[in-house]
Amino acid sequence: MPKAGTSPIRPMDLLRQSLEKNVMVEVRGKRVYSGILEGYDVYMNLVIRNAGETIGDESKGIHSRVLVRGDNIIFVSPSGGEMN
Amino acid sequence: MPKAGTSPIRPMDLLRQSLEKNVMVEVRGKRVYSGILEGYDVYMNLVIRNAGETIGDESKGIHSRVLVRGDNIIFVSPSGGEMN
Amino acid sequence: MPKAGTSPIRPMDLLRQSLEKNVMVEVRGKRVYSGILEGYDVYMNLVIRNAGETIGDESKGIHSRVLVRGDNIIFVSPSGGEMN
Amino acid sequence: MPKAGTSPIRPMDLLRQSLEKNVMVEVRGKRVYSGILEGYDVYMNLVIRNAGETIGDESKGIHSRVLVRGDNIIFVSPSGGEMN
Amino acid sequence: MPKAGTSPIRPMDLLRQSLEKNVMVEVRGKRVYSGILEGYDVYMNLVIRNAGETIGDESKGIHSRVLVRGDNIIFVSPSGGEMN
Amino acid sequence: MPKAGTSPIRPMDLLRQSLEKNVMVEVRGKRVYSGILEGYDVYMNLVIRNAGETIGDESKGIHSRVLVRGDNIIFVSPSGGEMN
Amino acid sequence: MPKAGTSPIRPMDLLRQSLEKNVMVEVRGKRVYSGILEGYDVYMNLVIRNAGETIGDESKGIHSRVLVRGDNIIFVSPSGGEMN
Repeated sequence: MPKAGTSPIRPMDLLRQSLEKNVMVEVRGKRVYSGILEGYDVYMNLVIRNAGETIGDESKGIHSRVLVRGDNIIFVSPSGGEMN
Repeated sequence: MPKAGTSPIRPMDLLRQSLEKNVMVEVRGKRVYSGILEGYDVYMNLVIRNAGETIGDESKGIHSRVLVRGDNIIFVSPSGGEMN
Repeated sequence: MPKAGTSPIRPMDLLRQSLEKNVMVEVRGKRVYSGILEGYDVYMNLVIRNAGETIGDESKGIHSRVLVRGDNIIFVSPSGGEMN
Repeated sequence: MPKAGTSPIRPMDLLRQSLEKNVMVEVRGKRVYSGILEGYDVYMNLVIRNAGETIGDESKGIHSRVLVRGDNIIFVSPSGGEMN
Repeated sequence: MPKAGTSPIRPMDLLRQSLEKNVMVEVRGKRVYSGILEGYDVYMNLVIRNAGETIGDESKGIHSRVLVRGDNIIFVSPSGGEMN
Repeated sequence: MPKAGTSPIRPMDLLRQSLEKNVMVEVRGKRVYSGILEGYDVYMNLVIRNAGETIGDESKGIHSRVLVRGDNIIFVSPSGGEMN
Repeated sequence: MPKAGTSPIRPMDLLRQSLEKNVMVEVRGKRVYSGILEGYDVYMNLVIRNAGETIGDESKGIHSRVLVRGDNIIFVSPSGGEMN
């Protein structure tokens, strides 16, 4: 149960809160897309702007916009992937 | 939350906006289809015209029209895949 | 958005237009079926007549009729697969 | 569009027409079942009588009856698999 | 079409007819379960009593009862797997 | 058909009967969870208490409670896995 | 059947009880996420705060927040993964 004063954050809430912010998205096949979240739907399909694409350790360039299919997503890190 | 003056772009909106424009579509198995988006449906099945097909680094020619099944799609890059 | 005078072609429209015409269908596992499209359903299950089957580079003969399950399909090229 | 005088054959029509006739069914994992189609459902689950089973090139014997799950089916060849 | 006097057997009919009889069930990963069918549901989940389990050629013992998930099933042979 | 005096046991019945009893659950990837079944849902997601986890032949310790996702389950052996 | 005085715990109940507590989540591909559960939905998509990520034996750092897609989850251990 959440502590007094907190309420749970549903996954779709998190996506909504992340609109127009940086996200890092990892997809099956060691693919990562990092950019600004422009939109999403209930299938977790995502639209990302200025999306840098890496496969493994290799940078593949930047998509001005990309639609990433939700099926293949492993995680979405709304903080843009900066890690402590 | 989107900035004032912007509104989120749902994935299906992006496909609609891309009709009759160049798209690059990557599919499982290192396949890429690049051509003009002629149509789509809610399953993300796509119809692409003058669709160049590459597998890995190998060009496989051009389909005058091809229906790409949505199930296998990793991403759709509506900008036609030109990267910065 | 489509240009004035054009309208988008939904994937199921393309299948309907291809009835009684040559199609090339690629299926997971490097399988290709080429023949006359006789029917289809909303799952993209296809009925193909005089369907030549190849796996990789190996021809496996011709099915007088074959029902190809939609689940495994990668693409359908309604032009019969002739490429420019 | 079908030629005048012809009408498309939906996949389920083809299964219905094949009842009590020979079919060859290929399933993922290089499995083939050949026998008399006794029944089916909308999931493409099939009941086959006197079903010879082969895996790759190896014959595994005959099931007096077998229920083959539709999920794994690649194709159903209602002609019993004789090829031209 | 079925011959006069015969009617098709739907897959769920076959499971119903096999209740309290021997079945052999093959599952992905070269697993086979052989025993008495006690129950099933529409997902093809099965309850099998005195179920011998083999993986490849290796016998793994007998489950007094086992629930086999339908998702992974390749085939159900209601004859208990005896082959001609 | 069941013998007189017996009635079939549906898979969900078996899970219900197994509440607060030992179960052994095998999951894709050679994983096995053994413990007390505390709950389940229609997706076959399971809650197991004092769940010993093994991967292949290696023991990974005991979860005081674990939610095992139904999607990956191969079988549930309500007898706790003791085999004859 | 549960013992007198106990009632079964459905998988979604367990997630609800685990809100604002430590969970360990294992995902296909040898990935583990450990942190505070902030939210979930019926697809078992999870929001985790201060989520340490490991792949195999390698620590990948900490996501301040991460949305883990339910599809790929193998198990959720609400106890935070401490094992006896």
